[in-house]
Amino acid sequence: MNPMDAQNQLLECMRQIQLNTETVHLADALGRVLAKDVSSEVDVPDYDKTFIDGYAICAQGTKDATVNAPAAFKVVGKLFPADYPTSLKVGVNEAVYVACGAPIPRGATATVKVEETRLNGDSVEVVRPIETGKGVIPRGDDVKAGDLVARKGRVLRPQDVGLLASVGLAGVEVFRKPVVAVLSGGDELIKQFLRNPQRIANNYSLVVADLASELGASPLALGIMPDAYDKVQAKISEALGQADIVVTIGGTSVGVKDFVPDAVNELGKPGVVVQGVLVRPGAVSGFGFVDGKPVVMLPGHIGSCIAGFYLFAAPLILHLSGVQCTGLPHLTVELNGEVDSGPQFRFQLLRLTREAGRFLASPVEGGSSALTTMVKSNGYALIPPHITLAKGSKVEMTLFNKLELSTVNF
Amino acid sequence: MNPMDAQNQLLECMRQIQLNTETVHLADALGRVLAKDVSSEVDVPDYDKTFIDGYAICAQGTKDATVNAPAAFKVVGKLFPADYPTSLKVGVNEAVYVACGAPIPRGATATVKVEETRLNGDSVEVVRPIETGKGVIPRGDDVKAGDLVARKGRVLRPQDVGLLASVGLAGVEVFRKPVVAVLSGGDELIKQFLRNPQRIANNYSLVVADLASELGASPLALGIMPDAYDKVQAKISEALGQADIVVTIGGTSVGVKDFVPDAVNELGKPGVVVQGVLVRPGAVSGFGFVDGKPVVMLPGHIGSCIAGFYLFAAPLILHLSGVQCTGLPHLTVELNGEVDSGPQFRFQLLRLTREAGRFLASPVEGGSSALTTMVKSNGYALIPPHITLAKGSKVEMTLFNKLELSTVNF
Repeated sequence: MNPMDAQNQLLECMRQIQLNTETVHLADALGRVLAKDVSSEVDVPDYDKTFIDGYAICAQGTKDATVNAPAAFKVVGKLFPADYPTSLKVGVNEAVYVACGAPIPRGATATVKVEETRLNGDSVEVVRPIETGKGVIPRGDDVKAGDLVARKGRVLRPQDVGLLASVGLAGVEVFRKPVVAVLSGGDELIKQFLRNPQRIANNYSLVVADLASELGASPLALGIMPDAYDKVQAKISEALGQADIVVTIGGTSVGVKDFVPDAVNELGKPGVVVQGVLVRPGAVSGFGFVDGKPVVMLPGHIGSCIAGFYLFAAPLILHLSGVQCTGLPHLTVELNGEVDSGPQFRFQLLRLTREAGRFLASPVEGGSSALTTMVKSNGYALIPPHITLAKGSKVEMTLFNKLELSTVNF
Repeated sequence: MNPMDAQNQLLECMRQIQLNTETVHLADALGRVLAKDVSSEVDVPDYDKTFIDGYAICAQGTKDATVNAPAAFKVVGKLFPADYPTSLKVGVNEAVYVACGAPIPRGATATVKVEETRLNGDSVEVVRPIETGKGVIPRGDDVKAGDLVARKGRVLRPQDVGLLASVGLAGVEVFRKPVVAVLSGGDELIKQFLRNPQRIANNYSLVVADLASELGASPLALGIMPDAYDKVQAKISEALGQADIVVTIGGTSVGVKDFVPDAVNELGKPGVVVQGVLVRPGAVSGFGFVDGKPVVMLPGHIGSCIAGFYLFAAPLILHLSGVQCTGLPHLTVELNGEVDSGPQFRFQLLRLTREAGRFLASPVEGGSSALTTMVKSNGYALIPPHITLAKGSKVEMTLFNKLELSTVNF
């Protein structure tokens, strides 16, 4: 099946999955996805305040002020940021000293900086007309009551969290992180581990768990499925009970020990939806649903596994996360070498570099079982079949993560 | 002081700070910064294996094979991925069935896919010459013993973690995340909080803590410094005892309640190094060192505070994190409006959009006390003084985080 058609089928099935939400304190909200539009119930700031150190006065009184005929105001008090609410007020010829951040006293319409005044006994003199509103941050300047301050689906950045706090919230409703169970197939992993207990034999599951984590999921490494049909089925069943998405690695092909698709079919309806896609690497990827819960079946070779991950697991994770964005950065780049997709879609690994402000992407070749090929890459492009892209062609590249763009400048 | 000179002074002082390391399990290594170059002590894979389902044979025997005169090999065994180590071997006219991932038996030099053979009794027939090495992943194909697999300073991505696991590591030495203590100045915050205990009055400290977290630090929110010299000093002293970097918000100017610089000077040598820089916003930012530990003094207005954060706190955090990258993505963009820096450096907030593959950055204007201005922005550019950049000019923009690039495509 064409990988685009397969993704559309996945999208179709995904629509039925209900997203869960939870409430978190704002101190824990960074990077979480907002589950509801948030509107402010208050004005920010909630009173007029000043952003200078000076005097609050009624601007009207300075209308005819000059160096030779200054306007004089009697200083009747001092206000600091902590002095809100205040009962202080200024009359027409009165001033109140205000420190940066202090509330504007009643009767004042502007502020004038200390350095623009002359102190004369208990009065300050202003030598030129001051505009109404000068130095004043009016109530509601940042946010007005009723303003939409953050949209559902927004991944909360530091400034978003700060804004939610400034409108008076202490907690916020976010989508629950999807739990992604990762299972690897193969007695060889168990054996490798027995041979050397220090070693993390199941290292591809570590890669998949971390890729899921980068996209906003909570990964759950559930170990190894032994090469036996009933054990594979039991493991997948256990995983379905604990996770929102189950991802299997290996055992998805048509070999004698490839039990995953049969197990998925037997566990519930509809079972396997797509098995095998016209993409290289990644051809033996697929997915199914067991009573509404998705199972993504990834191939055992790391290159194929990662292609399958981005084709099927990533859209599922992003959907269940509730994000309204692509989840990974992408940008248009210039190919720094020829790419020939061949008869199938090509999941082309690319290495991004930057020269004189241009983004160049060199095709990274290497065995689909070589993790070093992945390590050399910054991201990928999915190229339709039967296309030869000459060096210099523009392609849309998806980056593995934000750091790819912070390292290419070095 | 010129902000570039100030940063250079900071860099100079930073050199003396010792970086700390710790060992973490690979399951917790994602996003951590490697503290040492890692070389492999093993070959990966550590034995010849196949990536096909088929038969392992000695390729030499197929040299004259044709459809009419096939080369026949007697099948003497079966190997699956878990069958390493194996004592099986093939003679000149023998074959062993191998499943994808299985070890290559001794004597075999190539593999041939099942679908390219004909089964004839207990023999398989091959109808064309097979190249030596066909279908074989040789020992060390991915990594050879002695290869450098990851460099010191590398922020570990999923595939890096996987590669470290594949060379046999279970844990890895990383730089300890710098602890950043955040303190806010002002009785008004305490009062605001008392008035409405539900409210996070100290919301700017939340923003700074989250910005630090995004750069790889462990933030430590230490609350509010009351408006009294001895209390400010005590709070900063307490913070210095618990953190690698202390960041204060507010109280850095020359007002009557701006106690931070004096407190820093009195707490230890050399005290304040830079106070005030020629940048707008952010002019009253500065930093000092107390007996080798840095204190970054940020202004109280959020716009200025964030400018100061990126000028001084970000380089410090990145240095102490040990990363060999800019920490935040940056790219060359086209200005979508005029920017006039004025007499000082300008910390210009920008909003990134994408049109037909081009990155456009619109200047975002707004009060330096408005958090919404930050929320509307994707990043910033630092523009030298006395420069007018016309619409269409290219500037270097630093993005706030990876998601900025995944949202501009929507």
